[in-house]
Amino acid sequence: MMGMIEEIDKEDMTAMVDAFPSLLQIYSLSEEYQKKLEHIDKTSIKGIGLVGMGGSAISGLLSKGLLDQKSHIPIVSVQDYKLPKYIQKKWVVIAVSYSGNTEETLASLKEGQGRGCTCLGITSGGKLRNKLPSEQIQLLPKGLQPRAALPIIFAAVYPTIQLLIGTDKEDLVKVGRKLEELEKDWGGNITPVQFAKSISNSIPLFTGWSHLSPVAYRARCQINENAKTAAYNSDIPEANHNEIESCESFSKYRIIPVFLRSIYEETGITRRFEITGEIYRAQGISPLEIRFEELSQIEETLVHTYYLDKVSVELAKILKADPISVDRISTLKRKLASSDETH
Amino acid sequence: MMGMIEEIDKEDMTAMVDAFPSLLQIYSLSEEYQKKLEHIDKTSIKGIGLVGMGGSAISGLLSKGLLDQKSHIPIVSVQDYKLPKYIQKKWVVIAVSYSGNTEETLASLKEGQGRGCTCLGITSGGKLRNKLPSEQIQLLPKGLQPRAALPIIFAAVYPTIQLLIGTDKEDLVKVGRKLEELEKDWGGNITPVQFAKSISNSIPLFTGWSHLSPVAYRARCQINENAKTAAYNSDIPEANHNEIESCESFSKYRIIPVFLRSIYEETGITRRFEITGEIYRAQGISPLEIRFEELSQIEETLVHTYYLDKVSVELAKILKADPISVDRISTLKRKLASSDETH
Repeated sequence: MMGMIEEIDKEDMTAMVDAFPSLLQIYSLSEEYQKKLEHIDKTSIKGIGLVGMGGSAISGLLSKGLLDQKSHIPIVSVQDYKLPKYIQKKWVVIAVSYSGNTEETLASLKEGQGRGCTCLGITSGGKLRNKLPSEQIQLLPKGLQPRAALPIIFAAVYPTIQLLIGTDKEDLVKVGRKLEELEKDWGGNITPVQFAKSISNSIPLFTGWSHLSPVAYRARCQINENAKTAAYNSDIPEANHNEIESCESFSKYRIIPVFLRSIYEETGITRRFEITGEIYRAQGISPLEIRFEELSQIEETLVHTYYLDKVSVELAKILKADPISVDRISTLKRKLASSDETH
Repeated sequence: MMGMIEEIDKEDMTAMVDAFPSLLQIYSLSEEYQKKLEHIDKTSIKGIGLVGMGGSAISGLLSKGLLDQKSHIPIVSVQDYKLPKYIQKKWVVIAVSYSGNTEETLASLKEGQGRGCTCLGITSGGKLRNKLPSEQIQLLPKGLQPRAALPIIFAAVYPTIQLLIGTDKEDLVKVGRKLEELEKDWGGNITPVQFAKSISNSIPLFTGWSHLSPVAYRARCQINENAKTAAYNSDIPEANHNEIESCESFSKYRIIPVFLRSIYEETGITRRFEITGEIYRAQGISPLEIRFEELSQIEETLVHTYYLDKVSVELAKILKADPISVDRISTLKRKLASSDETH
């Protein structure tokens, strides 16, 4: 199955996103890397620092969302050039960069190495590959756009964290098959094409709770990058303390709230979503909802992500945006590199 | 000076926000509470969990932004009913609720108590006051709107964390005086009134870095609650990996980026702000900037916050919104309470 990645056209975002369930299934940790992980003294680890940016950060954020209620040590996401001071010797730093060349990630990794942290790298190559001994690197297949590589990055990051915190490893092949099954009718939700149509003239505001909060952030980023249009995110219950008061401007600015619902919500959270919906409707705003039944938490996280990834590509088609190009990100990187030379 | 709070009209948000610098100066930790803090064995603390929602959460987020580069232990913000699993016995849980009745905060505090965490409370009364022995409660003066109470909450939360992590205590009286001095000409920035005018027909998108990232979030919430209109936030460098691609929709949706600049930016961050600005301008978007010179990090954090608090109230005046009322938040709380009774 590993040949599959070469078959996917790097210039075809629809195909890359369609491959989500298969990408989740084809990849597993290398023996060498897994052996290294098993040899780390788990009892002495004080915390895990996930270092990465943009599309490479998402797998870490989704993993943290799933594991914060299971981990006996803090899992901290760092999206900057610098590590917080408390990430020191007994912390594990996992540097995730699909390209291997993200400068913030390389800078933070270097800091972690300087502090004597146990460092791991997850990458398809680039500079990151040579910053660590090979057994501390989980090498990913090349050839995907970083944001479309989420399933294979996740399939490396998530089991790494599970091994470090000592929870049972999930069967990602089974999860991938579940996603394939679900996409036949999307669990009764409207199709991603219909969904994309219904937000095509609006700013979607994705609102999630707990493990679906990072999915809301992922949806914002995917729509920004693939469809080149504005999208924002927020969390329940926090949004109930401030954002809810802004809803009288939603019609004026064409903001459409999208609730990412979970079957794991406690009563208080369910009621908050319901009442927030009532308040929005009283304002003439109909929030959209995405909800799946009878899934494990990891299935729920990944199917919401997959569905919204598809929405972002369908939205690009409607808006006639090129989902592949990231001209502005490239311009920025080029200008940053040239200013480096002049300094 | 403590009588001041009674003199401020609870129904006058302009006056409450104007009192920001004085509120920062009038308040200090009680002797009993400070003694308790001094007796906590600092060497055994594994981390600090800041528990709070909305206006009560902000002081913690600002403190974390200022202290992450100085603390040897993780400072984690929890805005939910549940604590992450890793917040256990050797963690300090600081429950912050101005009213003392925020249900998420009370639930998380209860969990912390059940796990044997060292628990502290910062509140003006309510149920929270009776959940802990008096020496573990820092009592705040009543009579302000929670979101306007930020300076007095901050003046309790920030020194609490500083004591726990062993950094030098800042002189908040001096900081307050500095704010009073700065508001004479706002350090050369346009006035909050002018600023409010320039965003009055747009969605402001506040973008910060490091210690100014939580200020960007505060600005979003203040505009939501006071001016009843949409506002969003993002972080540099993360926004350079996704959000920047959405800028071609900014004109269509009347989104106006606002950069919160810091004199503590490293070259890479400064260049990122500059190049992001260039890319936005090439798209016909002129980002606004707020920037102050020659301030300490805490002064910078608080003067940006104060300035943007003023903007939120001025914006409310322009939009003819009542900055005091929070009808939707009240409706939601009432409905939640009545559904509790029927369950």
